[in-house]
Amino acid sequence: VPPRFYVPAARAQTDAIELPTDEAAHLSRVLRLSAGDRVRVFNGRGEEWDAVVSETTRTRVLVQLETRIESAKEAGVAITLAVSVLKGDKMDDLVRDAVMLGVVAIQPLVTARTETTLATIERSGRVARWQRVAVSSAKQCGRAVVPEIRPALRFEDAMKAVQTPVMLVEPAAAAPARTLHDLPSLDALTLVAGPEGGWSEDEVRLGTASGAMLLTLGAQTLRADAVPIVAITAVRVRLEDF
Amino acid sequence: VPPRFYVPAARAQTDAIELPTDEAAHLSRVLRLSAGDRVRVFNGRGEEWDAVVSETTRTRVLVQLETRIESAKEAGVAITLAVSVLKGDKMDDLVRDAVMLGVVAIQPLVTARTETTLATIERSGRVARWQRVAVSSAKQCGRAVVPEIRPALRFEDAMKAVQTPVMLVEPAAAAPARTLHDLPSLDALTLVAGPEGGWSEDEVRLGTASGAMLLTLGAQTLRADAVPIVAITAVRVRLEDF
Repeated sequence: VPPRFYVPAARAQTDAIELPTDEAAHLSRVLRLSAGDRVRVFNGRGEEWDAVVSETTRTRVLVQLETRIESAKEAGVAITLAVSVLKGDKMDDLVRDAVMLGVVAIQPLVTARTETTLATIERSGRVARWQRVAVSSAKQCGRAVVPEIRPALRFEDAMKAVQTPVMLVEPAAAAPARTLHDLPSLDALTLVAGPEGGWSEDEVRLGTASGAMLLTLGAQTLRADAVPIVAITAVRVRLEDF
Repeated sequence: VPPRFYVPAARAQTDAIELPTDEAAHLSRVLRLSAGDRVRVFNGRGEEWDAVVSETTRTRVLVQLETRIESAKEAGVAITLAVSVLKGDKMDDLVRDAVMLGVVAIQPLVTARTETTLATIERSGRVARWQRVAVSSAKQCGRAVVPEIRPALRFEDAMKAVQTPVMLVEPAAAAPARTLHDLPSLDALTLVAGPEGGWSEDEVRLGTASGAMLLTLGAQTLRADAVPIVAITAVRVRLEDF
């Protein structure tokens, strides 16, 4: 497979298209490609083309789109991951893996026990960073869709907005929870995963009151950073979508 | 649940038992427990007891076993994980998560593209370290079984020893591979996972010649450190053992 580049503005067109700055740098400075080299271009919304580099200068890179190609098949179940923000690199790894496992969007959450605040997340530009990780992950794994990383929200605000929430809880949680066997067949759902310290009792109550289904993953306890990956995999395999 | 301690020598017995050094330090210095406090003791082979601290001195901690309790149920499918050694902390995290996901043993591998050598692994005492991580993970997740971390082996030597190997390959691998749908019902298997750089062609050939089943996990590429977690989960859900 030729190297793949993300060009959000790409569409069926006959004139050459300019690469965004990051992608241009990747093409010319990292991979050292130049006019005549074959590449692929995808627009992050599922469309992908064979293409050829038509011009590289110090300030810009142009590529000429050729045939539209069939891009990697997207997952049949549209999973959004709403997840308590993890520390530093752990969140980068999670975004990378979740994109590779086919999620359609990621909603970062600040919960009662999340070890950061909305203000810190905003000040540090972490959402933009995770979006870059999502782009790089899509480039690497072959997806032509770049999942949206939404602005971080407090748990209680997120629960007003998410569709078909399935809240991941420990087996010992107060409220009775379903297991994978009881998971109904769904076309789209939001997996809602908590922080290392778990959900507060209020949060479990609020989740249930908001219509969330509670789901436990087997009898064993898992680390918070492994839960989303295990949950996405388990739900996709369970719904025969893997 | 009272704090749990790992005492390999524990068995049904009436006399008090001494805790190993690490566990004694954890009990008295970290958790600051003393005579009269209630704890649990498990022997790493599936047996667990309610117990009470009977003595703590500067040099030793004694506990008195009481009723045998029913320990956490083990997975129905006995999965051994044979995995190319990952860099530093990533391997610690993988051991921790694999134990929580119920593996019965871990076989570290050195493959053609593994970024370390058998000599380095031996010199650095990493196997003993991973065994300590496995103990700490079992304590945390409630398992009364501590999976064995086997001495690291070269891939070709490991393939002579492992039972029912299922080798995880990229969708694009040369040889034709099965998907989860084609996975036969098995009571025990060894998932064999490669390094970041993938298997060499020779390794895929040797694996096939050794009777390994090749398995791909969906259409997307995953990071090497996520593959084992996704594979264990997918196999257990597929075999209705989650």
